[in-house]
Amino acid sequence: MQPNSDTINKIHQGDRKTIARSISLVENEVDGYRELLRGLTIKDQPVVGITGPPGAGKSSLVNALLAELLEDDLNVAILAVDPSSPFNFGALLGDRIRLNQYYEDPRVYIRSIATRGALGGLSDKIIEITDVLKAAPFDIILVETVGVGQSEVEIAGLADTTVVVLVPEAGDEIQTMKAGLMEIADVFVVNKADRDKAENFAQNLRLMVMSRGAKDWETPVLLTTATLFEGIPALKAKIIEHNRLAADGIRKAQLLSIKAWKLIRKERMAGLDRQLLLNEIKMQLSKGAFNLHAFVQKFIDRK
Amino acid sequence: MQPNSDTINKIHQGDRKTIARSISLVENEVDGYRELLRGLTIKDQPVVGITGPPGAGKSSLVNALLAELLEDDLNVAILAVDPSSPFNFGALLGDRIRLNQYYEDPRVYIRSIATRGALGGLSDKIIEITDVLKAAPFDIILVETVGVGQSEVEIAGLADTTVVVLVPEAGDEIQTMKAGLMEIADVFVVNKADRDKAENFAQNLRLMVMSRGAKDWETPVLLTTATLFEGIPALKAKIIEHNRLAADGIRKAQLLSIKAWKLIRKERMAGLDRQLLLNEIKMQLSKGAFNLHAFVQKFIDRK
Repeated sequence: MQPNSDTINKIHQGDRKTIARSISLVENEVDGYRELLRGLTIKDQPVVGITGPPGAGKSSLVNALLAELLEDDLNVAILAVDPSSPFNFGALLGDRIRLNQYYEDPRVYIRSIATRGALGGLSDKIIEITDVLKAAPFDIILVETVGVGQSEVEIAGLADTTVVVLVPEAGDEIQTMKAGLMEIADVFVVNKADRDKAENFAQNLRLMVMSRGAKDWETPVLLTTATLFEGIPALKAKIIEHNRLAADGIRKAQLLSIKAWKLIRKERMAGLDRQLLLNEIKMQLSKGAFNLHAFVQKFIDRK
Repeated sequence: MQPNSDTINKIHQGDRKTIARSISLVENEVDGYRELLRGLTIKDQPVVGITGPPGAGKSSLVNALLAELLEDDLNVAILAVDPSSPFNFGALLGDRIRLNQYYEDPRVYIRSIATRGALGGLSDKIIEITDVLKAAPFDIILVETVGVGQSEVEIAGLADTTVVVLVPEAGDEIQTMKAGLMEIADVFVVNKADRDKAENFAQNLRLMVMSRGAKDWETPVLLTTATLFEGIPALKAKIIEHNRLAADGIRKAQLLSIKAWKLIRKERMAGLDRQLLLNEIKMQLSKGAFNLHAFVQKFIDRK
């Protein structure tokens, strides 16, 4: 199916309804969604990933950052992939009411997407959905993801700038335990900085950043209290500063090659299901002799 | 090419030269290596992954564990994937001399494999090579990998039991920072336990293990000083205890399905090169308009 050129034009013009419908097409892989993506003129707006463990206050931070970006009269798209986010359904009523004002603002587009369990698949979907948003006249795109295990690493592969949000409580050890954060953070935020030990925790993070040695960008560690709007202008400034660095041609090409690899892999693995593999293996094991390499052979060619 | 049935028989019998040659075939993907793997009768021996950051003393620990397993007169295969391992070339002379005794022992087979940079590819190779070893009459297979960033996670997907080795020094914060260790460790070892703060660090790890709540296996935290052979019998006992749990049919099937998924993905991505993608993207970017999804399309079908 050829995509309607009217649809593409409307996305380029920023028509909210068309954007929403197109994201649903992409999210659900409805026939024609690939053709739609190929027909778009995808621009170069920064994609900012906001990630961290549950309870770090990511949604409040996104909320505050949004207000700050609107001060500059920017058009902002927000993609919320965090199932516990107030942008999503499992929300605290209080938070949702607070955010409701922005649903009315013509400069803002907020979209939540369902987390389907499979993280790999999810990060492919985020690539595709952010590209729909990048074809629309937004100035910046914020992607909020909950960091559990490997998922911080997933967002890092597709955002121009990755902000990792932590809280000072629960003990430094458990906080710093979170997988691979040092490697993916372009900006650290210690949120809920009005709590005990915030400065101490931030200082530990700074020591860790320094212990990694010289790089072209030294990951800043910022203190914020999002609910009181403290530290937000400084966060915006750091994000913009990092965006400028990330706009470099070589970094852009590298990021695109990572995205290309993931999308190709997704397509080449399409139609194969882990649960199906598991079921077949269980059945064959119950019959006796099992050779993994003989088993695998029949799945190598795509159906 | 059909694999020589003589080759397969010799692997089954444990002929060292044939095993060595066959691993080289698999490592270098020489024609016929897939047929060889499919022809093997792969048994059920436990594969024990030993991983951790550089300098944690993994090789000394493997060395001590090997001696302990030989006390029980077991046949042991060791696969060293750590480039800094004394089993490998970039070795400290002293360590190599210490290990040399085992090269002569008919119950021991030691093999190092080159780390080619690409971690994903490496973990696929480890699956294939350990399957060659599992077709031979070894009682247990130890796989030593250096943990840097995501590579601990890689080993966890293919070992029946994963031992994570840490050292008490360098500050608890930096130690506990190492990516995703909590999720992958079946056994924690605090090695070099004769140093300061070892017991304290172990206690912190135990608290973290407990904070995860009830599971079918509570990850033990053991103290060892491998060079003095302290704590090694307890480590062996815990590995054997965990192996018994891991021999459960459901866990086995799950591990096999993960391996199957990786091997299928490897084959379906064969012939595609990230550097090639990057180069093509750079060229197209220099020409102007670039659409990732149009770019990706021509790589979706396998060549």
